[in-house]
Formats: sequence, C-alpha cells, structure tokens
Amino acid sequence: MRISELAKATGVSVASIKYYLREGLLPEGVRSSPTQADYGDAHVRRLGVIRALIDSGVSVAEVRRVVAMLADPPENPNDLLGAAHAAVTPPVDDDVDTASAQELIAGLGWQPGLCDDATVAAIARALQNIERAGFAMPSAVAAEYVDAMRRIADAEIAHVPLSSPDEAVRYVVLGSVLVEPLLLSLRRVAEQIASGRRFADGVTESPD
Amino acid sequence: MRISELAKATGVSVASIKYYLREGLLPEGVRSSPTQADYGDAHVRRLGVIRALIDSGVSVAEVRRVVAMLADPPENPNDLLGAAHAAVTPPVDDDVDTASAQELIAGLGWQPGLCDDATVAAIARALQNIERAGFAMPSAVAAEYVDAMRRIADAEIAHVPLSSPDEAVRYVVLGSVLVEPLLLSLRRVAEQIASGRRFADGVTESPD
Repeated sequence: MRISELAKATGVSVASIKYYLREGLLPEGVRSSPTQADYGDAHVRRLGVIRALIDSGVSVAEVRRVVAMLADPPENPNDLLGAAHAAVTPPVDDDVDTASAQELIAGLGWQPGLCDDATVAAIARALQNIERAGFAMPSAVAAEYVDAMRRIADAEIAHVPLSSPDEAVRYVVLGSVLVEPLLLSLRRVAEQIASGRRFADGVTESPD
Repeated sequence: MRISELAKATGVSVASIKYYLREGLLPEGVRSSPTQADYGDAHVRRLGVIRALIDSGVSVAEVRRVVAMLADPPENPNDLLGAAHAAVTPPVDDDVDTASAQELIAGLGWQPGLCDDATVAAIARALQNIERAGFAMPSAVAAEYVDAMRRIADAEIAHVPLSSPDEAVRYVVLGSVLVEPLLLSLRRVAEQIASGRRFADGVTESPD
C-alpha cells in the first residue's frame, strides 16, 4: 500500500509516519518509483507498537531501542528482560547510596548481580525523594509494596510465552512498559475506593 | 536566613529558588530590606517537597496545585485524595470507551461515582494502548494486577494518620505521587529476579 493508505489503515497521519521513518522507528517501504514506496502489514503492526509506546510516555530514543530489540531479539528470555528494561530506563547518576534500596529488595530475594544496577539505583533515588519530601512511609505499607510487586512479577513471568522468540520478546518488552500506566491508574482507583470506605462519614468515627 | 543560606541548607541553587518563587511554588520570604528577604524553616521544608516532586517527574503546574493543597487542605481526607489525584492527573480526553476499564475495576468493588472519571479514563487509555500494540495481556495476570493494587491501597489508606489534617494531607498527597516511581522500579527488580529463576538455564527446560 502507499503511505496515504498506510495512514488510513492505522489512523496515524502521513506527517507522523514520515517522522517515524526519518527517526528510524519504522523501516523504509519497498521503493516502487523514485517518489513512491510500498508498505505492508508489518508496517501496520509496527506503527501500532510505536503509537502505543509513545502514547504511554516512552521517548522516541527509547522506542528506537525497543523496536531494534523486536527486530533482533536476544535468544534467552532472561537476557531479553534486562535489555528491555535497559531500553526504557533513563540513565540514573550512580552517586546515590543504594543501602536502603538493597535492604528493601532483599524481601524480593534480591542478591548482588540478580538484576541490573540501574534499576536498583532507580529504587534508591525514589526512596531518597520520599525521604527528602519528609514523607514517612510506614514499614507495613513498604512491605505490602514489595509483596504486591513480587506477586505481579511472578504471574507475569510465569506467562511468558515460549512458542516463539518473537512472541516472548513482544510479551516482555511491551508488557513491562505498557502495563506501567495501567498499574498506576489502577492504584489510584483502588485508593479512592478504600478511602471512600474508611472516610465515608468524615474523619471522626462517630458512634452512631 | 538569607536566600544564599537557604540554598546552602537545602542543596538547591539560588537560581532554582528564585525560579520557584517566581512560579509561586515557594512563598516569599519576609522583606528585611529593599533587596533582601528572610527565609525560615517552613521554606526549607517546602523546598524539600518541591524538589522531591519535581525529581519524581511531577510538572511545575502540578507541583503548584499540590503545594496549594498542602497550604489549604480539604477537611475530609476523602475529598483530599480526590483533590490530590486531580492535581497530579493530566487531563485525559474523554472520548475513550471506558467499558473494558469498568469491567476490570469491578474487581476492586468499583461502582459509578466511587472515583473520579479522569482516573477511569486513564485506565481505559492504558488498556487501549495495550490492545493497539497487539499485546495480549493474560487474564490471570490482569486479575493479579487488580488484586495487588487493592492490597496496596487498603494498606495505604489504613495508615492515613488522623493526628492532624496537615499530617493526613502530607501522607495522602506525597504518598500517592512519590511512591509511583518506587513501585515501578520494584516491579522491574521483581521481574528480573522471577525471570532469572524461570530462565536460569535458557528457554528449554532440560530434564537434568
């Protein structure tokens, strides 16, 4: 199909498609004349991935790394997950003290070398921001965070499809990134419902 | 203290402090001369909050709404949570179909009116992006997301301190926002550990 038909099929404007071509997110079509190229179903699918990632807040540079991985996947799903996380993890300056972070993730069975340093540094940075704001996170709540994330990760990894490397890559890369906005908004709904339940009658629990 | 001393006490540069003053995030100090103002401990605490929010990815406009709420808190913690979420929720165009979102959060005990529409729309948008990317989220995993977020929210809301409205506001506003980066990076560590466990020996589970 021509670029105008690709735009129609995906709901992505011709201008955006040209931008993704220039940025190397979308592979070139097959030249059919000096001014025209032909696009196929692979382009339609790739555009769906690109738009979903960008709409989820992933940067163009990160999308480029993700689609490169989809095109040339690591063989072992375990290498894959590290690479997927690295692709969408902004670099963290590593002058942050990771002692409290390490203590927290010991509850996940963490040991040095079991996951990449950037993610541990991201936890340390988050904890530092929480402390700097003077927010006292109750330890029972922190324990619930660790436990809930362990359950989630166990369910996710148990469902990595092994039918083909392609499928495993899609599952791991897209699943880690695209689910983040879902989890955060689910938490907000859950908080509002729990709060409504606890404070339905205002702050003071009246005896009647 | 003078602005240079405030900078020293907080590790925030004079230029940034002046920017926060201009943007209305930080209240003016007490004028001590035509060219000098005096700052106190409240400024030190406020700067800690501002920097923590900005470093967590909250926009200047959102920080302004959060600090306004800290200065003039709603009386009922339940109103507070909705207001806190509204302050840090980017407007979502509401032309999104929320049917699947509503089905998912029915598992949280959601009913119309129990939480704000913007958050439900955010869930719908996240689900739409997941679908658009061609990512098939296993229903068992989706159920785990819902359950994990319910546990987290229940623990968080159970710990809202009622000692003073100020404390409740700090807990709810800062807790909802500042914990988000922590949760996302905890999930990534948990995924890498679970993946290491499942795929330690490569994709094929060899019998030995």
